Amino acid sequence: MTNLKGKDILHGNQFSKKDIEAIIKVTSNFEKELKKKDSLTLLKGKILATLFYEPSTRTRLSFETAMQRLGGGVISMGSVESSSVAKGETLMDTVRTVSQYADVIVIRHPRTGSAREAADAVPIPVINAGDGTGQHPTQALLDIYTIQKELGSLKNLTISMIGDLKNGRTVHALAELLSLFKIRLYFVSPSSLRMPEEIINHLKQKGIEIEETEDMLKASNASNLIYMTRIQKERFTDLSKYEKLKGSYIINEEFLKKLKKKMTILHPLPRVDEITPEVDTYSGAAYFRQVRNGVFVRMALLSMVFGRTP
Amino acid sequence: MTNLKGKDILHGNQFSKKDIEAIIKVTSNFEKELKKKDSLTLLKGKILATLFYEPSTRTRLSFETAMQRLGGGVISMGSVESSSVAKGETLMDTVRTVSQYADVIVIRHPRTGSAREAADAVPIPVINAGDGTGQHPTQALLDIYTIQKELGSLKNLTISMIGDLKNGRTVHALAELLSLFKIRLYFVSPSSLRMPEEIINHLKQKGIEIEETEDMLKASNASNLIYMTRIQKERFTDLSKYEKLKGSYIINEEFLKKLKKKMTILHPLPRVDEITPEVDTYSGAAYFRQVRNGVFVRMALLSMVFGRTP
Amino acid sequence: MTNLKGKDILHGNQFSKKDIEAIIKVTSNFEKELKKKDSLTLLKGKILATLFYEPSTRTRLSFETAMQRLGGGVISMGSVESSSVAKGETLMDTVRTVSQYADVIVIRHPRTGSAREAADAVPIPVINAGDGTGQHPTQALLDIYTIQKELGSLKNLTISMIGDLKNGRTVHALAELLSLFKIRLYFVSPSSLRMPEEIINHLKQKGIEIEETEDMLKASNASNLIYMTRIQKERFTDLSKYEKLKGSYIINEEFLKKLKKKMTILHPLPRVDEITPEVDTYSGAAYFRQVRNGVFVRMALLSMVFGRTP
Repeated sequence: MTNLKGKDILHGNQFSKKDIEAIIKVTSNFEKELKKKDSLTLLKGKILATLFYEPSTRTRLSFETAMQRLGGGVISMGSVESSSVAKGETLMDTVRTVSQYADVIVIRHPRTGSAREAADAVPIPVINAGDGTGQHPTQALLDIYTIQKELGSLKNLTISMIGDLKNGRTVHALAELLSLFKIRLYFVSPSSLRMPEEIINHLKQKGIEIEETEDMLKASNASNLIYMTRIQKERFTDLSKYEKLKGSYIINEEFLKKLKKKMTILHPLPRVDEITPEVDTYSGAAYFRQVRNGVFVRMALLSMVFGRTP
Repeated sequence: MTNLKGKDILHGNQFSKKDIEAIIKVTSNFEKELKKKDSLTLLKGKILATLFYEPSTRTRLSFETAMQRLGGGVISMGSVESSSVAKGETLMDTVRTVSQYADVIVIRHPRTGSAREAADAVPIPVINAGDGTGQHPTQALLDIYTIQKELGSLKNLTISMIGDLKNGRTVHALAELLSLFKIRLYFVSPSSLRMPEEIINHLKQKGIEIEETEDMLKASNASNLIYMTRIQKERFTDLSKYEKLKGSYIINEEFLKKLKKKMTILHPLPRVDEITPEVDTYSGAAYFRQVRNGVFVRMALLSMVFGRTP
Repeated sequence: MTNLKGKDILHGNQFSKKDIEAIIKVTSNFEKELKKKDSLTLLKGKILATLFYEPSTRTRLSFETAMQRLGGGVISMGSVESSSVAKGETLMDTVRTVSQYADVIVIRHPRTGSAREAADAVPIPVINAGDGTGQHPTQALLDIYTIQKELGSLKNLTISMIGDLKNGRTVHALAELLSLFKIRLYFVSPSSLRMPEEIINHLKQKGIEIEETEDMLKASNASNLIYMTRIQKERFTDLSKYEKLKGSYIINEEFLKKLKKKMTILHPLPRVDEITPEVDTYSGAAYFRQVRNGVFVRMALLSMVFGRTP
């Protein structure tokens, strides 16, 4: 039986297929519960600390909402500029300090591996909300939950991941998790933003069928679901390169018309212009439902690390 | 019967005289309740999101206080710099995202009309906490409540509005609301900061007596109440113009001595030097009581949009 | 009997020996209570406002945690840049405004004396969380509590205070409080950062034995406890001076080996490099326990200013 009590949530690969199925189940229960009432009292008295060293609205607010809907409280470091980081404090000292206040820590930090270091430094559970180009496991889990919910199952799917597959930690973690299920993947990107070789090799070793292509339409028409990503300006040092690439793949009404069947479209958001606003009313556009699912998944994870599922 | 359940609060002119009287009544009840206990549980489990794209202490904290005194929770975007806005996300996407977390959104944004666009984009209630030089209806309502409470009635009043009447969204919304009651208005401003023509015409069409003047003392002595405003530095592109105008109208001890009778003085705050600190102890100086009333009014509005008045 | 109900907490010297013993007792009770449950309901419905005009993680989050563990709510001004301070509002107006929302205010401000001015301006309790090089009394109280807890008693102790004794408000307030107990003090600092003359004279008048030295090892070996401080970069206008002094006193493994007996080491944190990370696992390294004690002490103080101790 899956037991996350007292555990850290750091990396997609810490989860077995059984774990993910258990998380989906708990998530689904919370989704049903929240249709009946505004919030629960499972984590009453517990305190969540959010430590975000990079800009974020979505992930931080999603966790803060999840915690409050579970009856818990929140403390937040606020912007880096207004914190003791400005006095030269190390990440480890900040984390150790905050672990004296809170019962669980959610951290986003630009350096890969930082979340694991933080987790090693403190006795309370640490949840990785993104460590640079590394991992962002709760995003991957909410993506999985959304796929399962939108398509009814995780079996025999073909999924196209499109955009910046090189720097996009979201697609790395999601591909990792999806590899636990029998799935086919299309990786659609400009050649300079291809999925890293080691991830592809790793997935292939696990028996996942992968096809790399630059042809978004062909891949989409062969898929059950499109996972679109943003070309992330903040990962480029050469902005002219960014300007050249950012329009590579765009989903708009014209593209929708070329699709042979109804398509489910996910996106981790924020988007810039890779999905135009006219697409939002398309019934397969599931990216805002995906946002909402994030709250339910995080409620599940928070309740599970405290060993207090409904 | 006034029913704000599920409604947005966007513009002063959405309220009828009956609406305002109903809001005053609910507000008054909350004010009495909070004398007996620290907070209530009417909105337990509900979550308010504050999205402030411009600096604010007063309005944001007032809403957050109101929500907590009703037993609800709060999530806050924080400064624009620390949010996904920095990644190029549009206002509509941010609002749609946040609507997946919260049960009600309070928004302040520099662009006129932005609050209405936000409201149109999401199914949950949106409250406009100021859209540029546009509207700030909850301020107007707390002003009305304060006038009613300080003077005992909204009937047969003469009110002087003084200062920057051109850019001051507060006075625009307040004049609009006051026009529902039999009221006389003095507009006192330097000629370059006069009340916009279309607002004056609109008020006159409604049968409101208006006199424009640059003589603050004359107007005050003919009034029951002075509504003072700040010359807003942040609305000027030419700072030398600001420096020239900011001292145009000042309430100080000397001015108080020239008044023929006790005068009630309101100000939406923050002030810079248009009311000197020595005036604060004057019994008619009601601007900090006005601040407190803001919490009661916002409690009333929040409870009403959820259809949960006491 | 000590009664802090309705009182401000502004300066270490407002407390008698009896007061401190009472605070220690209440703190100790809260520490025990929190071993049994996550939080209490003593301050349910009360709202704490945090106004921090200087960067802080520790103190603000410590207070916000304490308030939430007591069942109360929190509103926070956020960074100065995102507040009405940017519109030119005075500190007194901000404090008066916030006093209309909250039931207690915690303030940190760079100007000495500002907390007292704030307290004088409003009817609700104000707690000084640091006013420039002035006072930071709750830090002093948590230091005292930690000393008592780590050493079992406050009697017959010898304590070495090391580092920047000139600008360190922490050591000023702590020395002040310790003077109520029979204690011997070593002041260890570079000559340009010595403890101010007037504080030394004041302590001597109270019968405290003081020795000033630049020899950290000698002082430490004659002490029961070391109170280490950071050379505060932000207090220097001449950065070359800072660079020269910051390495003056460092506790590392090498230093620990030279100590004749086990030593308790406190530090108000954040540290830069005056205590190396290798020291953290040393059993006498009590600075993270000290952080945790801060929550209990602040719970005690908050409950006491509301007259609601368990």
